[in-house]
Amino acid sequence: MSKTTHDVLAIGNAIVDIIAQAEDDFLVRENIAKGAMNLVEAQRAEALYAAMGPAMETSGGSAANTAAGIASFGGKVSYIGKVADDHLGEAFRHDIKAIGVDYDTPPLTNGAPTARSMIFVTPDGERSMNTYLGASIELGPQDIDADLVRNAQVTYFEGYLWDPPAAKNAMREAAAIAHAADRKVAMTLSDPFCVDRYRDEFLELIRKKTVDIIFANESEIKSLYETSDLSTAAAAAREECELTVVTMSEKGSMIVTRERTGEIPAHPINKLVDTTGAGDLYAAGFLYGLTHNMELDDCARLGGLAASEVIQHVGPRPQVSLSELAQQSGFG
Amino acid sequence: MSKTTHDVLAIGNAIVDIIAQAEDDFLVRENIAKGAMNLVEAQRAEALYAAMGPAMETSGGSAANTAAGIASFGGKVSYIGKVADDHLGEAFRHDIKAIGVDYDTPPLTNGAPTARSMIFVTPDGERSMNTYLGASIELGPQDIDADLVRNAQVTYFEGYLWDPPAAKNAMREAAAIAHAADRKVAMTLSDPFCVDRYRDEFLELIRKKTVDIIFANESEIKSLYETSDLSTAAAAAREECELTVVTMSEKGSMIVTRERTGEIPAHPINKLVDTTGAGDLYAAGFLYGLTHNMELDDCARLGGLAASEVIQHVGPRPQVSLSELAQQSGFG
Repeated sequence: MSKTTHDVLAIGNAIVDIIAQAEDDFLVRENIAKGAMNLVEAQRAEALYAAMGPAMETSGGSAANTAAGIASFGGKVSYIGKVADDHLGEAFRHDIKAIGVDYDTPPLTNGAPTARSMIFVTPDGERSMNTYLGASIELGPQDIDADLVRNAQVTYFEGYLWDPPAAKNAMREAAAIAHAADRKVAMTLSDPFCVDRYRDEFLELIRKKTVDIIFANESEIKSLYETSDLSTAAAAAREECELTVVTMSEKGSMIVTRERTGEIPAHPINKLVDTTGAGDLYAAGFLYGLTHNMELDDCARLGGLAASEVIQHVGPRPQVSLSELAQQSGFG
Repeated sequence: MSKTTHDVLAIGNAIVDIIAQAEDDFLVRENIAKGAMNLVEAQRAEALYAAMGPAMETSGGSAANTAAGIASFGGKVSYIGKVADDHLGEAFRHDIKAIGVDYDTPPLTNGAPTARSMIFVTPDGERSMNTYLGASIELGPQDIDADLVRNAQVTYFEGYLWDPPAAKNAMREAAAIAHAADRKVAMTLSDPFCVDRYRDEFLELIRKKTVDIIFANESEIKSLYETSDLSTAAAAAREECELTVVTMSEKGSMIVTRERTGEIPAHPINKLVDTTGAGDLYAAGFLYGLTHNMELDDCARLGGLAASEVIQHVGPRPQVSLSELAQQSGFG
């Protein structure tokens, strides 16, 4: 392989999170699927905001959180995603660049506002998301810099990108460019409902080897293979995918390759505050390890470490240096 | 006294906080006075934001935080402060109303943007603020609703209001209206540098009985009386003011009246994360207690409880119901 400029290129919906506490009965009353990503239109977004408690705003977006995590580990990472030229777009750009991610996607002008996700965190720490895609749906092939793809060890994207109309084609093109340069392509299944919406396309991505590495949580991988049994899903993934990584909340994570299935325990925590970003940061740790030639089990441990940091505070991105945290925890 | 509609009317600079972690050497390099409120102009604000790490945005403003805390305790509270008709202004309005504060000050149109304070939190949990006053400097006598003042048990305002040009006159008018209706007027000294800027005026407010109750921390009360000795400052305050409440961080707080000086220990915490809002939330607990006929020592304990909640997470407003927290802690 030729030399790379980046460990990872992450591509996703560029979103600002608006986070508030809520009780479970609020979710019921507002008809919000708990623990899931609910897509909302502009009008519904406005009504939900009016009903929402006091909130804080912080940059989010699944793949963007992963990019931020990789940068915090000290990795070289770039990001592609679409914001608008408004206040939230400027905050998104500031935050992702400030943590050390290369980000140059031009903002959308004279169009929809920057995407935002209203996230309700219930007392059990679970987050339920309500995403208005706004400007992020304008991401398309024109935003994919082929050189950036060629020069990254791994191109990583979200299943959520199948919601906007143009991004999926951009992803297929990016994957082709990556493979032509002998790079790897990774994907997160994002959300069980998202898997429901695009199951056939996601399976095709795996079966046609458009994607080499799959990140999923238990409900997503079960949804993909339409089974209620995790080992059945894992066995199916083993047949079809070179590497599948399944996060299992407090039970840790599972690595599935042709050769073996390994389980790695979760990193211990003091108090679960907000699960927002848990999967994203797990992927960050795993991908940092993978692009730094670590053993798969250590990749999983780094993923668990990063996830443990982000679930102990409100917000989807690390509040401490993950590089320092890894050192303190005996890595590298 | 006639019946009141509100326990407290709080008046202050309406500010959105932009909070990031920073190392101490960053403060030195950027010439930021640690632990203080540094006023910045638009250009300096832009440069500092560019140098700032990844941030989160959350409604702030000293008196607004106090109002939010009183509402969280279940108190009836209204707020007066000036935002612009922009994204941050809408977020500020949403957050303060969502927590239960009455807030009707019309936004500034075609003027400066909503005020923001860039807050750097160092590893010791101390916050250093850099405030661009923006639209908040337009607060003036026209924004003071005399009925709101007459109908609140206590009118509470920030020393920070002496920074904008017009607000101080509005405060003097509000105090006169309050006293004519046999209500109390309370004030926080806000910041030791703020006391330095307006010492003579603040002393006059006390000596002319424009203000009945003073909230201050150790450095503010020492600065007011230009002494390095806390008991000297407390003795001076006792002569001049009917009630002085001094917060002393981990040492708790001190209540100074003509009759006695009492010290109340701090509420225990697990981990200091971010001191932003500590004094504001202490004032919230104290004022809630005072307007609900509690003994002064219990007012101080409620203040300490509210402060202990806010310093254990990032951001200046409570993330749990203070009313429930008080119940769990054996109050009411």
